[in-house]
Amino acid sequence: MQNIMSIETVSLNKDNTAVVIIDQTQLPYNIEMLELRTQEEVWKAIYLLQVRGAPAIGVAAAYGVYIGAREIETQSYEEFRIKFKQKKDYLASSRPTAVNLFWALNRMEKVVIDHADKSVQELKHLLLEEANEIKAEDIRVCRRIGENGLALLKDGDGILTHCNAGQLATVKYGTALSPIYVGLEKGYHFKVFTDETRPLLQGARLSAFELHSSGVDTTLICDNMASAVMKKGWVQAVLVGADRIAANGDAANKIGTSGVAILAKYYGIPFYVCAPLSTFDLNCKTGDDIHIEERSAEEVTEMWYKKRMAPEGVKVFNPAFDVTDHQNIAGIVTEYGVATAPFEKSICEMFSKRDKLKV
Amino acid sequence: MQNIMSIETVSLNKDNTAVVIIDQTQLPYNIEMLELRTQEEVWKAIYLLQVRGAPAIGVAAAYGVYIGAREIETQSYEEFRIKFKQKKDYLASSRPTAVNLFWALNRMEKVVIDHADKSVQELKHLLLEEANEIKAEDIRVCRRIGENGLALLKDGDGILTHCNAGQLATVKYGTALSPIYVGLEKGYHFKVFTDETRPLLQGARLSAFELHSSGVDTTLICDNMASAVMKKGWVQAVLVGADRIAANGDAANKIGTSGVAILAKYYGIPFYVCAPLSTFDLNCKTGDDIHIEERSAEEVTEMWYKKRMAPEGVKVFNPAFDVTDHQNIAGIVTEYGVATAPFEKSICEMFSKRDKLKV
Repeated sequence: MQNIMSIETVSLNKDNTAVVIIDQTQLPYNIEMLELRTQEEVWKAIYLLQVRGAPAIGVAAAYGVYIGAREIETQSYEEFRIKFKQKKDYLASSRPTAVNLFWALNRMEKVVIDHADKSVQELKHLLLEEANEIKAEDIRVCRRIGENGLALLKDGDGILTHCNAGQLATVKYGTALSPIYVGLEKGYHFKVFTDETRPLLQGARLSAFELHSSGVDTTLICDNMASAVMKKGWVQAVLVGADRIAANGDAANKIGTSGVAILAKYYGIPFYVCAPLSTFDLNCKTGDDIHIEERSAEEVTEMWYKKRMAPEGVKVFNPAFDVTDHQNIAGIVTEYGVATAPFEKSICEMFSKRDKLKV
Repeated sequence: MQNIMSIETVSLNKDNTAVVIIDQTQLPYNIEMLELRTQEEVWKAIYLLQVRGAPAIGVAAAYGVYIGAREIETQSYEEFRIKFKQKKDYLASSRPTAVNLFWALNRMEKVVIDHADKSVQELKHLLLEEANEIKAEDIRVCRRIGENGLALLKDGDGILTHCNAGQLATVKYGTALSPIYVGLEKGYHFKVFTDETRPLLQGARLSAFELHSSGVDTTLICDNMASAVMKKGWVQAVLVGADRIAANGDAANKIGTSGVAILAKYYGIPFYVCAPLSTFDLNCKTGDDIHIEERSAEEVTEMWYKKRMAPEGVKVFNPAFDVTDHQNIAGIVTEYGVATAPFEKSICEMFSKRDKLKV
C-alpha cells in the first residue's frame, strides 16, 4: 500500500494551470490524482467532496480562484477586481460550513484590494504567491498543531478520532491526526480507534487508510461503538478537527462529533479539538450562529455503490455537521498553543500571539 | 408497500413440519418467507440473522427444537431425553447474547423433564403445545408492554429508537415499538426517529421499514446524528429493546445503545428499555456478567453488497451488543409494569407479580 504521506493532498501543477488533488471519493481503492483546470471544476470537486477537510478546502479554493483570475482578460484594475469578486463568490458557494473556504478566499481578495496600484499581470503574480503561501502556511501550521497536541499525550495512549482531520484534510500532517504523525516520528506508539463516520465513511475510507498506510496501530469501529470502546478503558484522549469554531469555543465538526464529546465527558476522557486559527469565526458568538449544511437523503439511504438500504418514501435527516458545546471540550489545540476554558479569553490570547509571532 | 403488521414474523407451517420466518436479511427489498425444515436450518437462520430479535429468536428456537424432537425415533423416554438435550444444546449455540434463546429452550426441556411418565408420542405433542404457547404468550406480552409503555408517552411525542425491537423482533407488535403501534390504534401520532444501526442496519432496513409501512411518521438518521436530533428538542423519549437484562437493571442491547442512553441523560430525555421478563437473567448480577458476542470484521469493512469500504489489513472491533448502565435507564417497561430505580427491588416485584398473575 502506498504511503499517503508522500503525496500532497492539494497542489498546483508545474505550469500553474491546474489544481492537482487526490480524489478522496476514490479512496481507499485508487490513489487517483485529478487535475482541475477551471474554477468550475474546483467548485465541483469541493461540492462532491473530492477535496474535503476544512484546511484542504481552503488551499484548493485559493488555487481555484487563482486559476480563475488567471483567465480574466483585461488591463483595467476595476474590471479585474469586479470579475475577481464574482469568481470568489462563486467558489464560496461550494460548501457553507467550512470557514477556511471563506478565510482563504478573503485572503486572496485582500491581495487584489490592497494593490490597486499594480498592473493586472502583477496582481496575477501576487495572487499566485499568496495561494502558495496559504499552502506553505498550512503545512507549517499543521506541524505546530501536531507538536502542541503531542504534549498532551503519553506514549502508548489509546486515541479515538472521528471523521478525517488527517493528512487528507490538509496539505500535510492533518490537524487531529498531526500529533499522532509527529509522535510517530519521535518514536511514540499510539493505538488509534477511528469512527467510520457515516454517512460518507471518511473514517473508514480516509482516516483508517492514511493511518494504517503510515504504520499506525489502527482499529476501525462503527460510530455507535465508541461508547463500548471508551468503557473498556481503551481510550485516553479524543482528537477531532473542526470546520468552524465560535468565539466561545463551540466547535462545528462532522456530524456525530458532539455525541463523541458527550461520551468522552461521561467516561472522563479529555476531548481535544485540533484546528488552526483560520478555523475560528469570531463573528459567531456561539455555535448557534453557525450554519449547518444539510445534505441529500440518498447519502443515508443508499450505500456507496448505490444500493438502496432503506424503504422508499421514508424521511431522512442528514445534517453534515453538528456543534460540540465548549463545555465538553477539554482544549482546542492550535498552532499557537492550547486554548482552554474560559475559552473566550483563551481564544483571544491565541489571536494576540499570532499578531506578535507569525507561524 | 405491504403492511408488515399483517404477517407473523415466526410461525409453524400447517402440518407442523417447518418453522416459517420472514427472511430479515432480504428486507426491505423482498418480503420472502423461508420454510426451515430441520434444526440445522433453524440454527443457520438464527446465526445468519434471518430471524433476529430476542423474542423472535426464542419462538424460532422453541419451534426449531420441536421439529428436531419430532424426528427422534425411539420409544425410550431416556433416549428421547438425551437426544432432546443434544438438540437443545445445539440450537443454544447459535447466538450467545440473547437470553430468550436459552429461556425458550429451557422451557421446552422442562416439558420433557417434567413428564417422564408420558410416552414419546405424548411428549412430542406436549412440546408442540408448549412451543405454540411460547408464541401466543409472546403476542400477549408484547401487547401488554405496548400498553404499559404508552402510559409513559404523550400524543405528538418525538421518539428515538435504536436497532429493531419491533414487530420483526417478536411475533407481533414488538417490544420498544409496541407502545407506538398500540398508540397508533388509539389515535396517537408519534414522530419516530430510527438510528440506522450499523453495521447491519437493522434500523434502516427493519425499523424504518415496518414503521413506515404501518403509517407511522418515521425519520431515518445515522447513528451519529442522535445527539443533533436530541439537541434540537425533537425527542421526548427513547425506547429500545434488550437482549439480556441483569438483576441490577444493566441492559445488554444492540451495540450503540449505551451511547444513546448517555446522550439521552445528557439532554434530559427519559430512556426506556422495553422487554418481557423472559429477557431478564437474574443469574447475571450486573452487566459485567453478560457475555458480549463479537462478530466478523467484514460486517464493518464491507457494505451490504460486499464492496469493501476500508483498507485491507486494518484491525476492526465489532461487538454486536453493549451494556447500558442502569443509572442511565429511566425505566424498564415489562408486561407486568415499569421497573424503576432501585432496579433490583423493582425487578423482583415484577417477578412476584408474574407468579401471582400470569399474562
